[in-house]
Amino acid sequence: MSEATARPGERMTAEIAEQPRVFADLLAQHDRIAEVAARIAERRPRFALLAARGSSDHAALYAKYLLEVLLELPVGLVSPSTTTLYGARPDLTDVLLLSVSQSGGSPDLLEVTESGRRSGALTVAVTNTSDSPLNAAAEFGVDIRAGQERAVAATKSYSATLLALYLLIDAVRGGSGEHARALPELAQRTLDTTGDAVAEAVRRYRFAGRMVTTGRGYSSATAAEAALKLAETSYLSARAYSGADLLHGPVAAVDSETAVLALCSAGKGGEAMRDVLDAVQERGADICAIGSAADAVRASHRIGVPDCAEEVAPVLEVLPVQRLALGLALERGGDPDNPRGLKKVTRTR
Amino acid sequence: MSEATARPGERMTAEIAEQPRVFADLLAQHDRIAEVAARIAERRPRFALLAARGSSDHAALYAKYLLEVLLELPVGLVSPSTTTLYGARPDLTDVLLLSVSQSGGSPDLLEVTESGRRSGALTVAVTNTSDSPLNAAAEFGVDIRAGQERAVAATKSYSATLLALYLLIDAVRGGSGEHARALPELAQRTLDTTGDAVAEAVRRYRFAGRMVTTGRGYSSATAAEAALKLAETSYLSARAYSGADLLHGPVAAVDSETAVLALCSAGKGGEAMRDVLDAVQERGADICAIGSAADAVRASHRIGVPDCAEEVAPVLEVLPVQRLALGLALERGGDPDNPRGLKKVTRTR
Repeated sequence: MSEATARPGERMTAEIAEQPRVFADLLAQHDRIAEVAARIAERRPRFALLAARGSSDHAALYAKYLLEVLLELPVGLVSPSTTTLYGARPDLTDVLLLSVSQSGGSPDLLEVTESGRRSGALTVAVTNTSDSPLNAAAEFGVDIRAGQERAVAATKSYSATLLALYLLIDAVRGGSGEHARALPELAQRTLDTTGDAVAEAVRRYRFAGRMVTTGRGYSSATAAEAALKLAETSYLSARAYSGADLLHGPVAAVDSETAVLALCSAGKGGEAMRDVLDAVQERGADICAIGSAADAVRASHRIGVPDCAEEVAPVLEVLPVQRLALGLALERGGDPDNPRGLKKVTRTR
Repeated sequence: MSEATARPGERMTAEIAEQPRVFADLLAQHDRIAEVAARIAERRPRFALLAARGSSDHAALYAKYLLEVLLELPVGLVSPSTTTLYGARPDLTDVLLLSVSQSGGSPDLLEVTESGRRSGALTVAVTNTSDSPLNAAAEFGVDIRAGQERAVAATKSYSATLLALYLLIDAVRGGSGEHARALPELAQRTLDTTGDAVAEAVRRYRFAGRMVTTGRGYSSATAAEAALKLAETSYLSARAYSGADLLHGPVAAVDSETAVLALCSAGKGGEAMRDVLDAVQERGADICAIGSAADAVRASHRIGVPDCAEEVAPVLEVLPVQRLALGLALERGGDPDNPRGLKKVTRTR
């Protein structure tokens, strides 16, 4: 199929639909991931660092919560420029450095990983390309096995990265990834049951000029990914805030012209969203609640997803978010497979 | 003076003008800060964590660069919810935990600090309120001595926090804070010389519907603070990106309707902005360049600030940013001293 004959959004549509199968394939690789996890556990890291850009940066944010809550490690997100621009060479003994990149080709992540390994870090690359320079640079690799992704907007590579990170981090503490087992089936159910609610949201937010996305805990990663997906495919001015940060200032800019896309999953993060929702509702915003607890909150529109353990909810709740971004892009006349001004691999230093 | 008789923006105006004197007062306290720094150096931390919310979170981002580049420590920004919602209790032996809060009263930072201290961290509170609960919880305190701040939008407390963090972190490596010595005079010169350029920017961006703020390296903190200040005082839809992150997706949403506020300081961070500026210019955006290297880049509008060492540039470059937020708020009919929906101290958990 030539590039020119593809319908707008055809690739993104297909790649969204592939996700239940991608999750099943990845779960079948649990043993390989558990092997890497065992090597990590052996080294008993005391701190963890995450290096990533773009959508992978949101997967890294999800991993930050997993590492902090499940492994009780202190965690930092790497600012690559301190290495690439300013030449910092910290002592990284006892540090686990997870580099997350779909393509495994970003020059800055490569430099951070090479430099980190030389500085004593245990380096692990999580990519969709096991033969990438990043995999070569890292001591261990985790292959997310999502298959080639052709739409510029990351969908299956994002959710597969989340799942791989969950399986990896859970296995470091000796877990068997039990909360993830049902995800292929739950993902299919999510896709099968949210179509109407997503279509209604596309009509509702067709002319939204200002969107804020928000979540707490694990789901703050989904909020960040939602804002990026909406900005890059639909060119919407979407801004993500953790629910707590939103109350520290930005809530002032929320008004009746603002659509608030709120991630509301069952669990502690979702419960803590209630104060946030009250505050934006008081300011007259239109709330679109997405998640397994969407039905339990006051909202203008709801997209419910099946129940699952809170720590894997981001894997499911991103599915309707991707479809919303896709739908809005098409409705607004764009081609989410080829957003203006973007390439699949962005090379920054 | 009663609350009712104040002119809109009167407090914010006065507090912006106070900053050169606040910097001078703080520099006079260098010995006290160096004492805390000596205690930190003694303990030889191997990892640093920063806990903050709102504007202080941007000061923490600045400190992250200082800690990574000047002290070559791996650094993480705390997600308070992993402590407050999920109850994580990581082992923080060898960890320096810096809690940054103007008011020292945020319940989540208090809990993070108390819990961190129990878990073995060396805890230091950086506040404007030496008798705050946060100071009581932390082992050491650094008082930024900015005086009471009455406008809801933080100005002098933000810049004084930056300066205190620079003095503290530089002193941990035995530095005398030499790059900061000229800041009181340079800050006064910045205020004296940027008035016209700021006034012109206020007219130019009066009707801007979409703003993106961006910087790299140390100045990415200023970009983040600029977006928050614009959102909370002028209710503008402003979104901050590190220059590198902007190229990974969000640049697609940049078009000729977008005003890009770009921090361009002399130094490595500013140099690395050139690719970013080329990309947004190609997309037709209107660029407002702010910083000591503003004159060296192609831009629609420029606000130059005096030259200084790159690592303290954020202390100066935020001054015209604050005035721009103030001016736009007044021009758009708001009262930046009392933004709708905000209180001075936000209590989140």
